[in-house]
Amino acid sequence: MASYETVLKRKYPAKEHARKVVEYLRKKNPDVNGVLYLEGQKTKMIEDNDGEAPFRQRRYFFYLTGCPLADSYFTYDIATDKSTLFIPPIDAESVIWSGLPVSEEEAFSLYDVDHVQTTTEVASVLTHPHKVPVWAIANQVSDHISFLSFSSTDFTQLKEAIEECRVVKDAYEIALIKKANAISTIAHTEVLKRVKGAKNERELEAAFIEKSIANGAREQAYHGIFASGEAAATLHYVKNDQPLEGKLNVLLDAAGEVDCYASDITRTFPISGTFSPESRAIYDIVLEMQHVCINLLKAGAVWDDIHLKAHEIAIERLLKLGILQGSSDDILKSRTSVAFLPHGLGHYLGMDTHDTGGHANYADTDSIFRYLRVRGKVPAGAVITVEPGIYFCRFIIEPYLRDPVHAQYINFDVLNKYWAVGGVRIEDNILVTADGHENLTTAVKDVAEMEKIINGS
Amino acid sequence: MASYETVLKRKYPAKEHARKVVEYLRKKNPDVNGVLYLEGQKTKMIEDNDGEAPFRQRRYFFYLTGCPLADSYFTYDIATDKSTLFIPPIDAESVIWSGLPVSEEEAFSLYDVDHVQTTTEVASVLTHPHKVPVWAIANQVSDHISFLSFSSTDFTQLKEAIEECRVVKDAYEIALIKKANAISTIAHTEVLKRVKGAKNERELEAAFIEKSIANGAREQAYHGIFASGEAAATLHYVKNDQPLEGKLNVLLDAAGEVDCYASDITRTFPISGTFSPESRAIYDIVLEMQHVCINLLKAGAVWDDIHLKAHEIAIERLLKLGILQGSSDDILKSRTSVAFLPHGLGHYLGMDTHDTGGHANYADTDSIFRYLRVRGKVPAGAVITVEPGIYFCRFIIEPYLRDPVHAQYINFDVLNKYWAVGGVRIEDNILVTADGHENLTTAVKDVAEMEKIINGS
Repeated sequence: MASYETVLKRKYPAKEHARKVVEYLRKKNPDVNGVLYLEGQKTKMIEDNDGEAPFRQRRYFFYLTGCPLADSYFTYDIATDKSTLFIPPIDAESVIWSGLPVSEEEAFSLYDVDHVQTTTEVASVLTHPHKVPVWAIANQVSDHISFLSFSSTDFTQLKEAIEECRVVKDAYEIALIKKANAISTIAHTEVLKRVKGAKNERELEAAFIEKSIANGAREQAYHGIFASGEAAATLHYVKNDQPLEGKLNVLLDAAGEVDCYASDITRTFPISGTFSPESRAIYDIVLEMQHVCINLLKAGAVWDDIHLKAHEIAIERLLKLGILQGSSDDILKSRTSVAFLPHGLGHYLGMDTHDTGGHANYADTDSIFRYLRVRGKVPAGAVITVEPGIYFCRFIIEPYLRDPVHAQYINFDVLNKYWAVGGVRIEDNILVTADGHENLTTAVKDVAEMEKIINGS
Repeated sequence: MASYETVLKRKYPAKEHARKVVEYLRKKNPDVNGVLYLEGQKTKMIEDNDGEAPFRQRRYFFYLTGCPLADSYFTYDIATDKSTLFIPPIDAESVIWSGLPVSEEEAFSLYDVDHVQTTTEVASVLTHPHKVPVWAIANQVSDHISFLSFSSTDFTQLKEAIEECRVVKDAYEIALIKKANAISTIAHTEVLKRVKGAKNERELEAAFIEKSIANGAREQAYHGIFASGEAAATLHYVKNDQPLEGKLNVLLDAAGEVDCYASDITRTFPISGTFSPESRAIYDIVLEMQHVCINLLKAGAVWDDIHLKAHEIAIERLLKLGILQGSSDDILKSRTSVAFLPHGLGHYLGMDTHDTGGHANYADTDSIFRYLRVRGKVPAGAVITVEPGIYFCRFIIEPYLRDPVHAQYINFDVLNKYWAVGGVRIEDNILVTADGHENLTTAVKDVAEMEKIINGS
């Protein structure tokens, strides 16, 4: 298989994405024709300030253009299979301060589109008589744009089509996720090297961000979690500024983004370089959960089943440890293990960290499935995170301890030895294939190897 | 004078700021009474995504509260001199995922306000009969807030009052700027240490951001400029991803932010560890411009005059180098030096990098003053950047070369030796005092010292 560097020498396959989206629309609209219309994200200023707000390209636009430029537009004519990218024109005043922007010629050489024009021409191009439908996304059409020359407008199907098409990745998209993973692995390793000498979570985050930027991932894919000690049990921990002294482990959930594509990696490791017996016991359970779940992945596997398998292993192993007590069947039926693994096993990964097309059901009354971000069968070409965890979070567990249905299955005395473990999560990014899977994440998770790097030996 | 660490052990002086703002209002409204009303910045989500967008506290709100919490509100009763901060209530579901938020008791101990309530009470507190005026900021009042119980509403004066009050800093604000400067100095020094071993601008930016975060400045005050070679002549350079090989100098304009207060530091240094003769000549001119201009600063000094002085020195010294030719008076009158120093000498610095109250006149027809961000007298307590520069930017200089009025003063042959210098800017943050000034920036700018650090000797 070609290395990701080789694949990424080509252009981002925007034209193929446009065709794929049309095929999706054709399934619901056999006579589909007309024009797909998309707008990129606009430049926005910080409120009451002359600085620009952080820019994040609109994903629907990127999927059909591969173009990261702000304030751009796109049309694709279904009948002629021709795409047009509209980029901002050269502004003489702006060139003085900011230098030359991307020209039409450069844009044509960089992006997989058939024509490039400037944005000054969008409105007039659209007002030519079209007499065909236009497909656009609600609330993503500028005020100066009129669709009056089209026979009809549809503001819902294009969004759905792109979201569903994004689930199955092509080779280029997988290469971008691999590259994001490769850079994030360097950053994860750097934190392992530094953790013994660090005083505070923020030094670890700083080291992580440094290695990400230096190696080409300017943006983090999401707000990273650098949680030490019991903070690791706070699933959405954001402080990242607490001292490491007196803590056992760090849970590090962070990864970089490359050309709008995310990676998403979690590792948990001992600050001292050696896991405590309790930490090691929990780590081994989570590693086994992850190993078994990854090996169940192939095209057509039902994600709900794999998630349930993670719980089954957790229950069996927590019974052995003595944190749980009673029959494993009863515990599973009563959903008591949700106290220790409250979140879903994983999510699709792509241009969004929690990528589109997962069909979660947050209204599910079954607590074990409520937060599962992907439901049903996973197709070949999907990239999904497998991120089991076991947490000792007082806010989550204490209501279970007060509820006699659950409390009967939890041994308080044994549980009390584990609060300091905080939480353990291990998360990799897995490509689903026709007959199996490929792990795109290479960051170290073997205990001996992690401990070796931390101890500098 | 107390160290900044000592000063920062106190609370941010929010109550004094409220009183100061009222005094400003009283000058224009002798019978000023009623309630000041402010809202903090709201939590915002990334478009089409379940992640939070980067958060930046609203500066008007912070000035009167010192509170960094999102989704908060504030009232200050002028008659009773009592302030109330409204913070988000505890949400049970959110605690499970995110842990405990700041409580009312904690907020009361952290922030300089008289009362703390939860935001669930704002609307009802405001609908009590007040029969006094309310002062608020246009477009910064939530839809669920009604001012019907007030005798009148003013949506313009509060904003102006805060913006004007912010010009003169108190000891606490100066301490925050000093701390931001101290952290940014560590980051600047780190880049000097690494530049000889670095291959690309982005490695320098990565090192800078690492040292900022690790030392307590999680946010950069502005989008940093890490420009090598001729890119240094692009004033708003944003790429920060070009190779260093074959380039002479780096222009580094970057600094961290601490508790909403910015620093803003520029240094220019040789990648090799030794300036080329042309680079050194330009560096020495800019350093002299900065030295003379800083020494002119004291309460009541007219910023326009100091800016003009920078141009006078530049003209005199560029004449000596032979880049300019003719009479210095004629060159100043014709504004030809603007070709090499197109921007203003500096700006107020505070919660915004380009802080409020500068009264720029971007419609000024005199090219030498058009981009000056501060006009007129600078008061004691103002913090202002002094950032002269000389740039060799083709987009800026070439129109001057084509204009016979300017071209007669420029020696093309000598100029041609200087393009590779790119641009030199040196920027410090200066506190204006009654009888002089204090330089809050300690980052190295002495050539011998910089070269020593770069060369690791």
